[in-house]
Amino acid sequence: MSNPSILILPGDGIGPEVMAEVRKVIDWFGAKRDLAFDVSEDLVGGAAYDAHGAPLSDETMARAQEVDAVLLGAVGGPKYDVLDFSVKPERGLLRLRKEMDLFANLRPAQCFDALADFSSLKKDIVAGLDIMIVRELTSGVYFGEPRGIFEEGNERVGINTQRYTESEIERAARAAFELAMKRNKKLCSMEKANVMESGILWREVVTRVGEEYPEVELSHMYADNGAMQLVRAPKQFDVIVTDNLFGDILSDCAAMLTGSLGMLPSASLGAPMANGRPKAMYEPVHGSAPDIAGQGKANPIACILSFAMALRYSFDQGDEATRLETAIEKVLADGVRTADLMGPEGGTPVSTTQMGDKIIEAL
Amino acid sequence: MSNPSILILPGDGIGPEVMAEVRKVIDWFGAKRDLAFDVSEDLVGGAAYDAHGAPLSDETMARAQEVDAVLLGAVGGPKYDVLDFSVKPERGLLRLRKEMDLFANLRPAQCFDALADFSSLKKDIVAGLDIMIVRELTSGVYFGEPRGIFEEGNERVGINTQRYTESEIERAARAAFELAMKRNKKLCSMEKANVMESGILWREVVTRVGEEYPEVELSHMYADNGAMQLVRAPKQFDVIVTDNLFGDILSDCAAMLTGSLGMLPSASLGAPMANGRPKAMYEPVHGSAPDIAGQGKANPIACILSFAMALRYSFDQGDEATRLETAIEKVLADGVRTADLMGPEGGTPVSTTQMGDKIIEAL
Ligand SMILES: CC(C)[C@H](C(=O)O)[C@@H](O)C(=O)O
Ligand SMILES: CC(C)[C@H](C(=O)O)[C@@H](O)C(=O)O
Repeated sequence: MSNPSILILPGDGIGPEVMAEVRKVIDWFGAKRDLAFDVSEDLVGGAAYDAHGAPLSDETMARAQEVDAVLLGAVGGPKYDVLDFSVKPERGLLRLRKEMDLFANLRPAQCFDALADFSSLKKDIVAGLDIMIVRELTSGVYFGEPRGIFEEGNERVGINTQRYTESEIERAARAAFELAMKRNKKLCSMEKANVMESGILWREVVTRVGEEYPEVELSHMYADNGAMQLVRAPKQFDVIVTDNLFGDILSDCAAMLTGSLGMLPSASLGAPMANGRPKAMYEPVHGSAPDIAGQGKANPIACILSFAMALRYSFDQGDEATRLETAIEKVLADGVRTADLMGPEGGTPVSTTQMGDKIIEAL
Repeated sequence: MSNPSILILPGDGIGPEVMAEVRKVIDWFGAKRDLAFDVSEDLVGGAAYDAHGAPLSDETMARAQEVDAVLLGAVGGPKYDVLDFSVKPERGLLRLRKEMDLFANLRPAQCFDALADFSSLKKDIVAGLDIMIVRELTSGVYFGEPRGIFEEGNERVGINTQRYTESEIERAARAAFELAMKRNKKLCSMEKANVMESGILWREVVTRVGEEYPEVELSHMYADNGAMQLVRAPKQFDVIVTDNLFGDILSDCAAMLTGSLGMLPSASLGAPMANGRPKAMYEPVHGSAPDIAGQGKANPIACILSFAMALRYSFDQGDEATRLETAIEKVLADGVRTADLMGPEGGTPVSTTQMGDKIIEAL
């Protein structure tokens, strides 16, 4: 049997740097845990635009469809701000999500004990925080038609369409309920059903799917209240499910509660492939951070934790994922810190590469 | 000359209780500051539905169009959850906003010194916080067509339309720049121009309006990053301008940073009327809080501060507004606390009515 395959798309900015550390980790699992992967690498985002004039070439798209998992670094940078909407680095990312049909975006917001002081929130509000946001990722206002800027009378009008079918809502909801079953059996769905008909349908379908999961305690919240409650008392939540646009904002809000964006991974999952594995892409929540790119300052942990999610969700290696997560916790507990994690309490300052090495040591 | 007119719409839940305290304050200004108003009262929300079968009658709508300012309490309650979308209490509020064309919703997020401990955020992050969010209030996905739940093949699809014309963006932007000129000359505009064409047009128009305000330092931020930055370091902002839906979420997020929702007012302003005053409605940011309604527990300050905004923005009585705000600060500094403001440090517990009395005393 051949090894499972991984396509690495480092992208722009700090993407290549943090991904280099992930490669070390992948190699370690091959050498020491008998978990070898066939790893290939390709371009996405600005890097792909520079090479091919498009933020994702058709060839790369085809390869992404064939592998068992994609690992993505980050895309974008000021150099590409002037580009037309249709070839901006983000379009590469959105194309991957859409064409691989990665409808369930899993965004954990977890507060690491060693880093609880980093939050702008009071320690008791966030210590031990462990939320999982399931964001619908392939529909809604991100992809709905009609869209564009049109002439109307003597002015222009900008139009986007929020659009959700029952089946789109259903599969995202089901992914969330399945996760809730493996966690604390508590799910909160967020929309604006008081204002938007798409939110009414969302609430109705989530409620219906919930009947298949009687053990899960389901609640509904308007998204504006959701933002407030995340800030006020985030530990009231376990799993949250919401649409693409609300998910974009609420998951970033939740991420920032932890205070350490350089620590947060994500998984984007689709339907099972022939081999039973879901279509999948893993990426850190942070961006390409062009201001610190190439300086060895980036924190590779979010990207390494994204690989841990790959071990868990694509390769059914939950124990190995936990091994990796535990190694990272140990390194943090030892006070090893990239620049972004260096607080008033100090610690041992390390570069991107050194952080990777320390994690390998801890493994 | 006749007195300026105010229409009071107490609404549901704690609305009538907090509004009763506002009336005392209005009467005080009439008696002691020679600022008499012609005050009338009417129904909105569930209360209007109970009386007329609609959350806002045509008669009330017509009166709202005629007065110099509307003061609204809050709408909604569990009793009305079963109602059809078209007659839900919220529709009354949305009708007022739309038909009065109140395009600029001003939502201050201000942290009161005496209450800085109330925030879930660390004190140094929020102490002295003073942000003004300008939310576009009459367009976008709240009102865009087509909208609804439609049959499509063998399933249903929920659709809403985000829609902004140049002139809609322009007038909201202009309101924000004007405010910025009176404050710290710093404006941040938020959208998702990396994903939505309506956001591209938004950014373009705001930038163009900005050319008329060279003194104002204008920046642009994606709304997801905006949510993060609000949580991470809210004091980086002075005035924020954003669309109806992003504004709904981001202003609630910002409100919760202060930790005391019972303190936050809002103003919704439209075009100038024949007498030069803008069409205007003022309301607290908090909801109808049905769980504590009728128990004398509600905090009337947000509603009283909304009247202070009316003094400032409708009646050109900035000094009197400041007088009222200062009285409230004094009462708080004296440790007078409704239930929601009662922290570990204690204070003098008071009821809704007593808080109103204390504020009158301080005046
Ligand atoms: C880069 C951008 C297109 C993207 C999004 O809006 O989805 C990002 O914010 C995210 O959350 O992954
Ligand atoms: C009650 C509701 C319709 C309203 C809105 O969504 O605008 C509220 O959340 C607000 O922010 O004033």
